[in-house]
Formats: sequence, C-alpha cells, structure tokens
Amino acid sequence: MKAVELSAKWDPKKNFKLGSRDIDGKLTYLGSQVWRHPEVKVVDKQKPKIQPNEVLIKVKRCGICGSDVHMLQTHDDGYIYYPGLTAFPAVLGHEFAGEIVEVGNKAFSKRTGKVYDVGEPVTVEEMVWCGECKPCCDGFPNHCERLQEIGFSIDGAYAEYITVPAKLCWSLKKLQKKYKDVYKIGSLVEPNSVAYNAVIERGGGIRPGENVVILGGGPIGLAAASILKFAGAGVCIISEPDANRANLAKKMGSVDYTINPMKENFVEKVKEYTDNEGAAIYLEATGLPQVVTEDIQNCIWECKNVNSTVVIVARAEQRMPVCGEYFQVRRAQIVGAQGHSGHGTFPNVISCMAAGMDVTPMITKEITLDDVPANLKLLQTDRENCKISVKIN
Amino acid sequence: MKAVELSAKWDPKKNFKLGSRDIDGKLTYLGSQVWRHPEVKVVDKQKPKIQPNEVLIKVKRCGICGSDVHMLQTHDDGYIYYPGLTAFPAVLGHEFAGEIVEVGNKAFSKRTGKVYDVGEPVTVEEMVWCGECKPCCDGFPNHCERLQEIGFSIDGAYAEYITVPAKLCWSLKKLQKKYKDVYKIGSLVEPNSVAYNAVIERGGGIRPGENVVILGGGPIGLAAASILKFAGAGVCIISEPDANRANLAKKMGSVDYTINPMKENFVEKVKEYTDNEGAAIYLEATGLPQVVTEDIQNCIWECKNVNSTVVIVARAEQRMPVCGEYFQVRRAQIVGAQGHSGHGTFPNVISCMAAGMDVTPMITKEITLDDVPANLKLLQTDRENCKISVKIN
Amino acid sequence: MKAVELSAKWDPKKNFKLGSRDIDGKLTYLGSQVWRHPEVKVVDKQKPKIQPNEVLIKVKRCGICGSDVHMLQTHDDGYIYYPGLTAFPAVLGHEFAGEIVEVGNKAFSKRTGKVYDVGEPVTVEEMVWCGECKPCCDGFPNHCERLQEIGFSIDGAYAEYITVPAKLCWSLKKLQKKYKDVYKIGSLVEPNSVAYNAVIERGGGIRPGENVVILGGGPIGLAAASILKFAGAGVCIISEPDANRANLAKKMGSVDYTINPMKENFVEKVKEYTDNEGAAIYLEATGLPQVVTEDIQNCIWECKNVNSTVVIVARAEQRMPVCGEYFQVRRAQIVGAQGHSGHGTFPNVISCMAAGMDVTPMITKEITLDDVPANLKLLQTDRENCKISVKIN
Amino acid sequence: MKAVELSAKWDPKKNFKLGSRDIDGKLTYLGSQVWRHPEVKVVDKQKPKIQPNEVLIKVKRCGICGSDVHMLQTHDDGYIYYPGLTAFPAVLGHEFAGEIVEVGNKAFSKRTGKVYDVGEPVTVEEMVWCGECKPCCDGFPNHCERLQEIGFSIDGAYAEYITVPAKLCWSLKKLQKKYKDVYKIGSLVEPNSVAYNAVIERGGGIRPGENVVILGGGPIGLAAASILKFAGAGVCIISEPDANRANLAKKMGSVDYTINPMKENFVEKVKEYTDNEGAAIYLEATGLPQVVTEDIQNCIWECKNVNSTVVIVARAEQRMPVCGEYFQVRRAQIVGAQGHSGHGTFPNVISCMAAGMDVTPMITKEITLDDVPANLKLLQTDRENCKISVKIN
Repeated sequence: MKAVELSAKWDPKKNFKLGSRDIDGKLTYLGSQVWRHPEVKVVDKQKPKIQPNEVLIKVKRCGICGSDVHMLQTHDDGYIYYPGLTAFPAVLGHEFAGEIVEVGNKAFSKRTGKVYDVGEPVTVEEMVWCGECKPCCDGFPNHCERLQEIGFSIDGAYAEYITVPAKLCWSLKKLQKKYKDVYKIGSLVEPNSVAYNAVIERGGGIRPGENVVILGGGPIGLAAASILKFAGAGVCIISEPDANRANLAKKMGSVDYTINPMKENFVEKVKEYTDNEGAAIYLEATGLPQVVTEDIQNCIWECKNVNSTVVIVARAEQRMPVCGEYFQVRRAQIVGAQGHSGHGTFPNVISCMAAGMDVTPMITKEITLDDVPANLKLLQTDRENCKISVKIN
Repeated sequence: MKAVELSAKWDPKKNFKLGSRDIDGKLTYLGSQVWRHPEVKVVDKQKPKIQPNEVLIKVKRCGICGSDVHMLQTHDDGYIYYPGLTAFPAVLGHEFAGEIVEVGNKAFSKRTGKVYDVGEPVTVEEMVWCGECKPCCDGFPNHCERLQEIGFSIDGAYAEYITVPAKLCWSLKKLQKKYKDVYKIGSLVEPNSVAYNAVIERGGGIRPGENVVILGGGPIGLAAASILKFAGAGVCIISEPDANRANLAKKMGSVDYTINPMKENFVEKVKEYTDNEGAAIYLEATGLPQVVTEDIQNCIWECKNVNSTVVIVARAEQRMPVCGEYFQVRRAQIVGAQGHSGHGTFPNVISCMAAGMDVTPMITKEITLDDVPANLKLLQTDRENCKISVKIN
Repeated sequence: MKAVELSAKWDPKKNFKLGSRDIDGKLTYLGSQVWRHPEVKVVDKQKPKIQPNEVLIKVKRCGICGSDVHMLQTHDDGYIYYPGLTAFPAVLGHEFAGEIVEVGNKAFSKRTGKVYDVGEPVTVEEMVWCGECKPCCDGFPNHCERLQEIGFSIDGAYAEYITVPAKLCWSLKKLQKKYKDVYKIGSLVEPNSVAYNAVIERGGGIRPGENVVILGGGPIGLAAASILKFAGAGVCIISEPDANRANLAKKMGSVDYTINPMKENFVEKVKEYTDNEGAAIYLEATGLPQVVTEDIQNCIWECKNVNSTVVIVARAEQRMPVCGEYFQVRRAQIVGAQGHSGHGTFPNVISCMAAGMDVTPMITKEITLDDVPANLKLLQTDRENCKISVKIN
Repeated sequence: MKAVELSAKWDPKKNFKLGSRDIDGKLTYLGSQVWRHPEVKVVDKQKPKIQPNEVLIKVKRCGICGSDVHMLQTHDDGYIYYPGLTAFPAVLGHEFAGEIVEVGNKAFSKRTGKVYDVGEPVTVEEMVWCGECKPCCDGFPNHCERLQEIGFSIDGAYAEYITVPAKLCWSLKKLQKKYKDVYKIGSLVEPNSVAYNAVIERGGGIRPGENVVILGGGPIGLAAASILKFAGAGVCIISEPDANRANLAKKMGSVDYTINPMKENFVEKVKEYTDNEGAAIYLEATGLPQVVTEDIQNCIWECKNVNSTVVIVARAEQRMPVCGEYFQVRRAQIVGAQGHSGHGTFPNVISCMAAGMDVTPMITKEITLDDVPANLKLLQTDRENCKISVKIN
C-alpha cells in the first residue's frame, strides 16, 4: 500500500542523555535532541495485520498538523524542530477518519457494545494510552506514562490502511444525517478534541452567556472559538495578527470580534468589546507566552470579571511572567492543557458536529497522498492555509 | 398611578398554626391555608417613594406567571391555590422590565459600579433576599431565610411604577443592539433565570454535545430547552402532551424532537432519538413527579449514558418512587432547583439574549394593565398561550 | 493449592430469559434467578499461571464480605440470595492482600512505573474493568460494560495463590512504617474503597468542619464514618439499631454520637447533636431505603443546612418515597454510588491508612481457610461480628 | 474607652493619582503611596453607638497581624509599608473575638435566625463587603467592589468596644464545650479563615490521603497545615528556613516533615518524603514567589502526581517565572487566593475547632492593650513569635 514515511538519522546531540524510557537508535521523548536530516517519501508498504483487539481501517481523510511540519523542518544544524516523542522511520499522519474493513474478535465498538461492524465510519485518538499506569487508572489518559503516538512513534495515517486498537476508535455514524462526506468533517475531530479538552475539560467550560478571548487563530484557536460559541459564549473575541486567519475566524461565524494585536491595543479592545467585563476564559494558543502573558493579566486586572481562567494549550518553553496579585484580586487561575483523550471528549465533539457545529471551513485545501511531502514543506512558511486535508482512497 | 391589586380574606383553615415568621392577618408562608375569596382589581394607588438604596422604575412590561393565576384561582371552599409566601392586599406582577426614573444616593449599578443613571433599562429579581442570613452569607440567596417576594408579599409590577432595591436590578443595556424592544425580551429574563438556575447552576449544565430531555412544555420547560440548546446540547427533546406547546417548542428552534407522552412510549422515543444514549440532564418541569419519575428512571436504566442528572424544578408535594439501584448502576443523581438569584444567573441570561438567544416567541399575547384581571381568569383554563405579556406605559 | 470453592446448579427460574451477556450454563448477571443449591468446599486446585500482564500473588489475608455470605445463603426454593454477576464453580474471596511472587513481563507497577518487584505487598481491586468500553474510556470504570468480578465470576482469593492483571494491584509498601501486619490492614482497603467512592467521589466529600450522618453500622457504614472523620467531619453521627455495631463505631473513634433508630427519634436526635444544623452528607448504608428515606428527608427539611447530599450506597430494589420539594427548598441532592475502582480511590485509601486512619478494629475475628465454609454459614445469622478476616499462608 | 489608634500624614507621592474610589485626605486603596510618618498611641475614645443592623461587642481578644505591623513600619522616606486600603486615623486590630453587649433591632444571628442574644460570644469578619455590587451578588464577597476593612479603613478591635454589622458576626458558642477560653481560640478564626479560603475554597481542598506542601511557616502557613492535616492530608510538609517557626509547626502536630530550603534541596526532600509522589496542593505563603516558583514547578515536573494545584496566598508584586509546559504535562494549575468571607468559611473553621482542630499553640505571647504599640514595633524584626494575642476586658 502507499504511505508517506519519514526517516531521519539517529544522531544525539552531545549533551543528550538517553532517558529512562528512550530506546537507543529507535525512540526518544525529545525528538529535537536526537533526529537529524529528516526525509519524507511516498513509499510502498505492506498492508498491516490486526491483533484481536484491533481493527483495520481504510483511511479516507487525514489532515496535516503543525507537528507533521515540524518533524520535517530543521534548524541550521539539521536537527528537527519537533521536540517530542518520536521513533523513525514512521508513517506520519494522525488527524484521520476512515472505514473499518477488518475486525479482531475482541475489537469492541463503544457505540454498540459489540464487536465492530465492517463498514463503520470512524475517527481515532492519536494517543495510544496504556490504560494500566497510575494516571490512566486514575482517569487521566492524557498523562499516560507509557504513551505511544500514532504518526509519531508508531505508523500513522498518511497511508491507505492503518491498524489501531478498537478502544481508540469513535463512530462517525451520527454525522451521516447532516454531512455528505463524514470523513472530511471526521478528520477534524482530533484537532477539535484538543481544543475541547483545553477549554471544556481543563478550562471548565463556560456558563452560557459568558465571554471568551482566544489568543491565536491557528487550527486550535479556531476550533476553540467554534466550541465555545457553540457552548453559548456571550462575546467571542479572537486575537490574531494574520489577516487570512482572522478572516477565516469571522467566516466560520464563531467569532464576534477580531483583534490585531500588532496594530491594536489588546486590553483596550477587549474592554471595548465586552463593555469592560473581560472574559471567563482566556486561551493561550499562540505559543508565545512571553509575549502575551502581560496582555492577558492586564485584561484580567482591568476588567470587572472575577473568576477568569487562563488556559495554556500551545506548547512553549518560555517562562510566563505571572503576577500572582492579579490572580488574587480577580480570583483568577491558570491551567495547563494537553491531549484529547478521555473525559468523553471525542464523542462529545462528534455530537457537537452532528448538532450543527460545522467546522469544515477550517479546511482550506484538499490534496492527495502524493502531494503530502511538498505540502509539508510549503507549510513551513505558508500562513494562507488553515488546515490542509489529504483525500485518500 | 394605575395598578392591579389582589385582596383576599385572612381566614386560616382550622388546623392551620401560625408559623414562626407568619404575621397574623397579614403575611403567611402557606397562602393556600389562609387566604380565601381573592379578588383582583385595577386600582389607583400612590406612586411609591424610594429609599437611599432604591430606584424608582417606570414599568414597561410585565409577564403573567402561573403563580399569578394561582393566587386568584380557588378551590371549591374558596381558598386560593397558591401555597407559598403571600401578604395581601398586594399589587401582583414580578416578571418585569422598565426604565429607571429616580435613583437613591446609595443605589449602585452593578454595570458601572456607580449610582444608577436615570434612563437605564433594567429587569429585576423577584426574590428580595436579605443578604444577612446564613444561606445568603454562604452564597445561596435562593434559600434566604428572610425572603420577601415582589408581587407576592410586597407590591409588584402590574403597575405604572415600582420601587425596588438597586441590588436586585440588572441592566438591559446590552440588549439594545439586537432588540428593538428591550423591555419585551427583558420581561422574560426572570422566567428564563428560573430555568437557567435549574439546568445550569443546579443541574451543572452540560458539556457541549450532550443530550437533554425536558419533561413539560410550559414557560420554564421551553426556557430550559432554549438555554440548553444555546449551551450546545446535542439532541434536545421535549415531552409535552399539549400540541400547541409542543409546536411552540419546535417553532422556537431549540428542540430537535417532541414526544407526546400520552400517545407515545416515552422511553422508546428517547432511545430512538438519542441512538440509545439517553441524556445528561432530565428536567422535571411537569409538576407531576408521581407520573413521570418511572419514565425518567427507566430511561436512565435502559440508555447507555452514565452520570445523568435529574433536575426537579416544578413544585409538587407528591412523592417520587425513586429506585436507588438505577442511580447506582448508572451513576446518576437527582437535584432540587429553586429560585433565580445569585450565581451570575440574571446577567448570564441577559448575555445569552444579547448573544442571540431570542426567546420572544414565548410571548403569545400582548395586553394592557386593564386586561390583566380578565386574563388571569382566562389562564385558569387556557392552554393555548405560553406567556402573556402586559404592556405598560 | 488449597482453595474455597462454591458450586451450584444452573437451573434458571421459569421466567428467566438469558441476558445478552449471559453465557448459558456458566455465567449470569442475575445470580438469584439462576443458581440453586449452592455448596462451598475446601478443595485442592492447581496453582494458576500468569499471563504477561499479570502477577501471581501469594494470598496472606482475605476478609469475608456480605456478598460471600449471600452466594451461599438460599431462599426456601433453593435459589441463592445474591442477585448479581456470578459464574460457578468459582473460588470466592475478594477483599484480599498478599505478596507478589511471580511477575509477567508486561506487569507494571503503578508505584515505580516499572515491572513489579517480587516481594511487593499489594491489595487488588475486585472489579476487573475492561478499559475499552465507553464508560471505561470516559473515566468511569465502576460502570464498565464488560466487567468481570474476582471471587464472583472468576476465581477469587480464599486460596493460597491467585493471578490478577497488574493494573488492578496497588502497593501496600507505604503501610510498612505504621503497621506490623500490612496484609491485615491491607485486606480492608477494598471495603474502605467502596465507602470512599461513595462519600468522597460520589458524595463530593465534605468541607472540613461539616457534619455527616451515616445510616447503618455495617462494614461500609463504619468505613465511611472513619473516612469522613479523617476528612475533617465536624459532628459525625451513626444511626444503628444493633448495640454491638454501635459500640464498635464508638470504639473506632470516628463517631461522635450514635442513634438507635428503633428507640430514639432520628430527626430529633440529629437536630440535638448538630445544634439544628443537620449534615452535609447523609449516607444510606442500611439497605432499607423504604424505611429511612422519610427520616433523611425530614432531617433535611427541618435542619438549617442547605446543600445536603444523600448518598445511596446499599443495594435495594425498594422504592424511596422522595419529596422533591424538600430537595428544592433545601438545595439538596441524591446520588447513587457503586464500586471502588478509578478516581484514585484505592491509592488514596492506602494513603489515609498510612497517615493514621487505622480501621483494623473493624476486624472482630480471625480464621483460617479451613474455617471459611462454617463461618459463611455462621454469618447468615450472626450480628456480633463486623469483619471476619481469613489468615492464609 | 481605651483604644490603640494609628494616625499618619496624608502626603501622596509625586506620581500618585487619586483613584476613583479614593477620598482626598482620608482614604486610599494604595496606602504605601500616600501615608507618611505613622504613629500609634493608646487613646481614650468614645464608646461607639450601634445602628439597627449592628451589634456592640465587648472585645475580649485581638491578635496582631503582619498587616498591623506594616501599617506602622516605614521605608527610609517615611512612607508606610502597607500597600492596601487604609483611612487614618483608625483604631487598628481585626483578628478578634468578644461578647455581644448591645443589639440593634435588625441585628440577626445566623445561628438562631433571630435577633442576637446579649452575651453571645462571637468573632467577626474583617471584610465589610457591601452585599450589593456584582461580585457580592454573584457570590464572591472576597472581591467586593466597595469593601471597607475593620482595623484598616474603619475602626478596629484594639479597643474595649467595637460596633459591627451583625451579618459579619459568627457565634463561638459551639467552642464552649471544648475550650475554656473561647475568645482566645476565637481570635484565631480570622487568620485560619484566610488559610481555609486559600486551600479549601480556592485550592479545591484535597481528597483524604493526598499530600500537601506548604511554603512558609508564618501564621497563614501554619493555619493551612492544620486545616489540611485536619482534612485528611497524607504527608504534610512545611518548608520554612526559620527554626522557631519550623519547630512550632511540628509542635502543633499537623506537619509530618519540615524542610529548611536554605540548607536542603527542596525538590529532593519533597520527593524523598512523598516517595516521589509530590503533592496535590502547594501553598505559596512566603511572599517570595520569584524565589520559590522554580522549586514548586520543578517538584510538579519531577514528581509523579498529576493534577496539582499551586495556591498563591501571600501578597507580592514580583513576577513568577511560570513554565506553562510543566503545567500542561502534569495537568497542573495555579490559583490566586484572597480574603476569608463567604462560602461558609468562618462557620466551617469554627466547626473544625469545635471538632478538635486546636490551633492555640500558634499564640506564643499574650499582652494587654497598653503593650500593643511596643509589640507592633518589636514584630518589625522579631521572628520568634508566631501570633501575639492581646487580652482585652
């Protein structure tokens, strides 16, 4: 079968010490410290075989994620950008939907409680949580201690077929009434689940009528805006310097106002648009916490709202200069968000879509498997596209 | 000024004992045990005068509530239906909006933090919570131990003017952008806040995408459906035997399916409409718990959803035959809901309306102050109307 | 190896229909409808063999649970009392602790994150949750759709050895500092976890200083009292007609007052002991909801506390005559509780024990494996003992 | 009557602009910008008179708070340390208990629901929340927009008598059974309520058995340790460089381990004492967030616990260098805590004390009113004492 595979050279940096769960020459939790000179190719691979608890999926759609881009993108020294769990060579691709074509005899459907039916349209969690470590047993699969990741440390879905444990699959059947192409919208369940986990599970959601402010108009920011507006946000504001993305946010209908933080005074604009109330949730989705933290906390300080929650969803190593007093006086909090598994997130996102939360305008370009390598490169600089979707099979 | 006043005879039933907070001849917490032969008249009263912490409101709109009807409606022995806190004579009317025309020097606006501006459009909580008893101090004003109620135990808003403590007022200013008549929609804030308190504050709200089932299509049921759909409900079902009300529910656009429980199998229909999932919230808004409890808990038992919450908002003395095992196996709960004050409820409902939750179709008839007595009688039997709205000034 | 095994005749009652997950002649979800003429014997069985994800445990202690008694106890027609999931013949026993003596190569310890060490003292969840159904994936393993139960549907721990999945094990190592016999206290983790799940996870716990009332002084009631007092309960009251049990409650030091509901007025006593405040949690642990519901809700009604939670932990089919109005006026709620898995319950109970919550006085008698059949019979009538503990190996 | 009054010169710094709620020459929200050359004297004042909603209290005990010290302590330029709401001259003192000796006719007791009895022992909230602004109406009195503070902006309790609104009083009656001197322990309710609000209301409390780490062994840190241990903390650790305070922590029995962060490696010690688990709550009570933030988040990062909450209770202007990634990977959060009012905090603290949480060892010195000025000076440098208690009447 056809697949898009990334290979790279295992060449640890001088100071790098193998972690306790790293595997020499094969797998690391700190990709950017180890992998050098990555290459992506369309290859021919053997169709994978299922275990009793697995299903074989004929992949129909797979979206390109920023992580995919960063596994191929390198610094001047040839080391990859992507800092996380990786094991190469690996087929990339983890935002996907497809049709079940083969079923193990212990591969149960969460929709029916029975073994999966062939033909069921599904989407799949990217995080292969073990279900047996302490965080998993306590109900926190996003913090699994023995995580594998589809399209990072095990083969992904830029391929004609993929096998996955049935427990990671979620039926798309209820989307058939509203959407002609359930796989297209279905491939957006994963990124929307990351946003849902951030603002609903970790941010605690909103009471209908409360305001929200999203910083950053990338896919996660846009998804969060859609979810929070669908959840009854009063005023929904997105702050994004790129005009394309800001316009897309407006076009999707979930945003009441956009702010260009390079040209406008963020705090003043939030005050103006919310009649000085401020917001219940501020989502940091820019990856530049050192830049936006001051703005967010000045907003919290100057606006009248108490009990605001700052949700950090974008990854960044930079420190945030947090002023505790602002959080005391305004009864505010900061939470970190990671992952998309557990807590009913995937099925709830699918239900939102079935009930009318149509986020397909996020997809700004559709390509084939053969186009993936070129588009991974394009996205290193392109800011015109939001989500590129790969049509497969 | 013109006002609609109810008077009745203080004639306690034989077994009635004055409660510790009742006032002989004047006020009781158990209206139906005491008041007989009620009469409602349009009268001429003196315009009331404000205290330093109060505002004078020129009333623009006041909706008719079922409680208003039940204060005039009598059993064969002449005692009134309404069982709660009452002190007659009193001007009725508590679902109102109006314009501030006079302001005490300690009458602060929660919107500006300053003394109220003349001309501000406002709506008002009906519950005059004391702010000093233990429940009030602990944050539970809906359970105030020294409650007074506007239009029940003190003069209400079927009148040209009313004075109220500023702390009970909430600005309608943010509705001006979307609604031509802010007073019409503003008079619906109170009943919608009762529903919001039930499903959001007490029921815990929903995660976007979760299903809800509303039993009873009266004003509170319809309001709850609007709020929950606005809050991102997946499938929203209303169970209501009256065709007019069921149709109104559909017309308002917040309900996906209606069930006629007299003609259809409630449990089967819920299973069908939710693909056997059931609902996260079941709202008992019928006042017939002895009739619907079995249906609700069979739904919980037979559907796959865990963690359902049954919210009881309608008042009723009848016992509910609750089977604890169903609630154990399905991890379910039952909560009682009362009131509309505190917890940000009024301002959040106004924000929902500003953000697009237009519940004005609930108003099925508009009348004048002079028409109120006749319409209070009409509503004793009429099921065609949902909410009758009185235009004043 | 030596083991205590129960066998019975598969003889379904006339109206019994095999459920979708029942297995003819072997396993049923409704034991009392199917199993007849049970017998318990000490037998010699082969020592079991481990799978890669399992450990072999040398059992040291196993407590007798009421369920064990009810699997042997029969009605006049010979059918067993126990109504739940069962597959016979099976070795009984599920409240146990032991030492790990053999370890599969994928049998990870949640304490170390590595494969288990031989010699580690552990206790084990009784519920073998699948980790793959919707409730499991959403974080509710107590409501697993494909549950197996140790000592009910698969072989239990009245035996010298048992194999179990490593994910169900919890280390008792941190008890070694405080307890000479970690296995004795360790065998009490399971019943205490049922109580912890009821009052902490499902009941929401208490704020330190709040009052609690426990109805029923059996092992679960006593465990709940210990946990809630350890969690900072203000006044802790237990209502129990049996003098032995009431005295044991007092002796354990977690109860401030006991009520004999057969001789004293429950409501008056709660009011007296709490200065009319009532309680934040009322735990129904009697199994007689039809008897105690009225008392509980009268307490809620007459006491001043708002926001009380009634937790139903004892199983019973009888309906509770719930008056919704009481729950509205007092802002109260009812929750059903089942199970002991997930939510950090087992490790938290062990930590409580390590920090001083010594519940060993619950054990009122210690026996050997050979004594089990006779003691199972004895407990059908005996009310003198609280927990009988079997010393093994 | 005798009272200890502080006066100072209103001499705003050059850049100071009067805030919207400041009153020229009298009251400011930023004390350290305005007040210069403070003096404290024992004076003779007229006994105050009550309003209808007030009570007159004969003060029995009043503790010295760090804020009292900072109102007298000055920088080299003569401006006071204390940065908050102040209006001088004012009688200081706000951690007090006393006996009600006169009662307004609308001064209701939250214990009885009736007008207060003369003779009732009470303690009093320091925060005079208005009950009418948006935060108050929404249930957040600690964030009142029109706050007055007893002993800061209105006369306090280093005096023989004080009048206060009845709504701020809480009965100490239930302490009489356990404590000989209810006023001594009663004067500790206020600082313990600040700690309770921080760790229970804002920090969300703990599940019994979870570990906690307190940074800073001042009165709030010690109170928090007592409360959390009373609430069932597993391992309770306090980090405090001063040996006196560390020893007091141990002597009070609520702390399992102390760390001297000047001499020991904080992260290593926390890992050692918790078997690498870390803590559910980290309380920042040092006032040096720039120093301790790195330690706290390294602990969160290196320990296994997910879902930790960092509570900031000490005031400080310095920024905290927060690394969002640590909070993402460990599912952690930061909350700011302020105040002691609302949420049942005062009555719950009193109930904890009644149930055995005896924090009187915190009081390390007892003095008279005449000794107050000298002791306020002494405490500018002294680190030997924890809480100095003033005996009055």
